[in-house]
Amino acid sequence: MTSDLHQRIAQSFDSQGLMTTLGATLTAVTDGEVRIALPHSPHLAQQHGYLHAGAVTSIVDSACGYAALTKAPAGMEVVTAEFKLNLMRPAIGDRFEAIGRVQSAGRTLTVCTGEVHAWRGDESKLVALMQATIVRVAPPTQSEQQR
Amino acid sequence: MTSDLHQRIAQSFDSQGLMTTLGATLTAVTDGEVRIALPHSPHLAQQHGYLHAGAVTSIVDSACGYAALTKAPAGMEVVTAEFKLNLMRPAIGDRFEAIGRVQSAGRTLTVCTGEVHAWRGDESKLVALMQATIVRVAPPTQSEQQR
Amino acid sequence: MTSDLHQRIAQSFDSQGLMTTLGATLTAVTDGEVRIALPHSPHLAQQHGYLHAGAVTSIVDSACGYAALTKAPAGMEVVTAEFKLNLMRPAIGDRFEAIGRVQSAGRTLTVCTGEVHAWRGDESKLVALMQATIVRVAPPTQSEQQR
Amino acid sequence: MTSDLHQRIAQSFDSQGLMTTLGATLTAVTDGEVRIALPHSPHLAQQHGYLHAGAVTSIVDSACGYAALTKAPAGMEVVTAEFKLNLMRPAIGDRFEAIGRVQSAGRTLTVCTGEVHAWRGDESKLVALMQATIVRVAPPTQSEQQR
Repeated sequence: MTSDLHQRIAQSFDSQGLMTTLGATLTAVTDGEVRIALPHSPHLAQQHGYLHAGAVTSIVDSACGYAALTKAPAGMEVVTAEFKLNLMRPAIGDRFEAIGRVQSAGRTLTVCTGEVHAWRGDESKLVALMQATIVRVAPPTQSEQQR
Repeated sequence: MTSDLHQRIAQSFDSQGLMTTLGATLTAVTDGEVRIALPHSPHLAQQHGYLHAGAVTSIVDSACGYAALTKAPAGMEVVTAEFKLNLMRPAIGDRFEAIGRVQSAGRTLTVCTGEVHAWRGDESKLVALMQATIVRVAPPTQSEQQR
Repeated sequence: MTSDLHQRIAQSFDSQGLMTTLGATLTAVTDGEVRIALPHSPHLAQQHGYLHAGAVTSIVDSACGYAALTKAPAGMEVVTAEFKLNLMRPAIGDRFEAIGRVQSAGRTLTVCTGEVHAWRGDESKLVALMQATIVRVAPPTQSEQQR
Repeated sequence: MTSDLHQRIAQSFDSQGLMTTLGATLTAVTDGEVRIALPHSPHLAQQHGYLHAGAVTSIVDSACGYAALTKAPAGMEVVTAEFKLNLMRPAIGDRFEAIGRVQSAGRTLTVCTGEVHAWRGDESKLVALMQATIVRVAPPTQSEQQR
C-alpha cells in the first residue's frame, strides 16, 4: 500500500516539467510526509550564486502539495491555495532537501508545514520554513488541461 | 537617473542563473516598482501543464526584491526575509507578468506586494498575489560568495 | 439592496462579543469592501502603550471576513482559513480604521486584502497590511454552536 | 537565571493592557519557548460563540514575541514584523493555550512558530498554527512612548 502511495505521487511528480528542469527528485513518500532532493547548480542561482528563493520554494511547495495528496481520497487531486515561506539564512549548499508534512487534513483544506535543509558534505542547516494551505479538487477535464 | 536605476537592477538580474533557466526577462524598472515577464513553456509546468507555482513564485519574488532594491541606498543589497503567496486560479496562459511594488520602506525592512497576471492573447487574469518582507543587507564579501 | 447587505453584516458583527469588548464599530459596508473603526484605549495596548498587534488583527480580520461575506450567496457563511499580516510601523494613534477588500471570490475560497490606518487628528498612516484566505461554509447547526 | 528570564518577560506581559482585557496569563517561560493561557468567555467570541480569531492571534502573537525576547540580548526589545496564522478548526473550548517557539534567531530577525490548543476538560485539539518574523529593536525613548 505504501508502494501504491509512492507510485501515485511519483507519477504526478514525473509529469511536472519544472521538477525536471530544476533537477529535483522525489526521495521519500510516506503517509503525510514527502521529501524532495535537489543538487545545487549555477543555473538555479540568484545573484550571489546561492540557490534562488524561487527554487527553494519550488521544491518545498511540491513536497507540501504531495504530502497533502497522500491524505486525499483516491481520484482527488490537490492544488496549493497559498503558502508562506521564511528564508532564514542564505541557501548555500551542495544539495538541498525539502520535507513537506501534513499538520491537519480537513474535508476541503489541508494545512502542511515544510522545511528546506541545505547540505554541505555531512552537515545540514535549516534554511527555510513553509506553512501552506492546500485545497482538494476534482481533477481537471481533458479539455481544461488543453486550454 | 532612472536609467541608472534600471542598470543597477538589470546587472543583478542578469547574474541570476535561475532567471535565465526559466526564460524570464526584466521589462520595467521604476522607483518602487519592477516588472518581469515570462513566456510559458512545458519545461516550467506542473502536472496539468499549467505554470508551476514555483515558477510563479520565482518571478514575483524577484520583482518584489528588485522593487525593494530601488529604494535601498547605493551599495546596499536586499534579501527576501519571507513572503506569502495566494494562488487564486490556475496559471494558464501564453505568457506571465509579475509586478512587484514597494508599500513601505523602513531602515531595515521593506514591505512589498506583488501580482502575477496570466496573458492569453490580449486578455489577462490575476493569478497570484504576494505580500513580502525584504531586508536590507551589506553585500556579502567575496569569500562568503565562494562558500 | 445595499442596505440589506449592510444589515446582514451588521447583524453578525453585533453578535461578536470581541468587537464589543474592543470597542470596534462597523462603519461602512459595500459590495466587496467593509470598514471597521476602533478608538484607541489603554486596555487595548501592548507594553509601550501602542495598539496591540492582536487588536490590529482583530479588526482587519473581521473587515476581511465581512468583505468576503458580501460576495457569498444568501444563507452561506464564511470563516477565515488563514491570513498574513505585516505590521509596518508602531500602531500609534487616537483611532484606527481597518479596510477589508475582496480581490478574488471563487466558489470555495475568497482572497481579501486588508489595511489598517492609524489616525492622529487629521493625519493617517498605514500601519498594517493583511492578505487573507476565507472559506465559504454552511452555517453551523444550533447543536454545533452550543458545544 | 531562568527566573530572571521569567521576570523579564512577566514584567512586559503585565504592562500589556490587552492581555488583561482578554484575561490571558503567562504560564511558562523557558529559553526559546513561552506559553500563554486564556479561559474562554462570551466577551471574546465571534458570531457563533467560538473564540474570535483576533483573540487566538493575540495570545499566540504574544507567545511568539516573548519567545523571541528570551533570545534577545539584555536591554533589547522585540517587535513583530509579520506573522501568518492558519485557523484549522473552530476555536471551541473552555480554555486555550498558546505556545510560541523560536526556530531561528539571527542578529536582526527571529523566526518563531506558534500553536494554539483548545482544551475541553482533559482533551485538547490543535486549532491554529502561526509562523512569525520578529525584529530586534532598541527600546523606544520616553518621548516616543508618550506620542
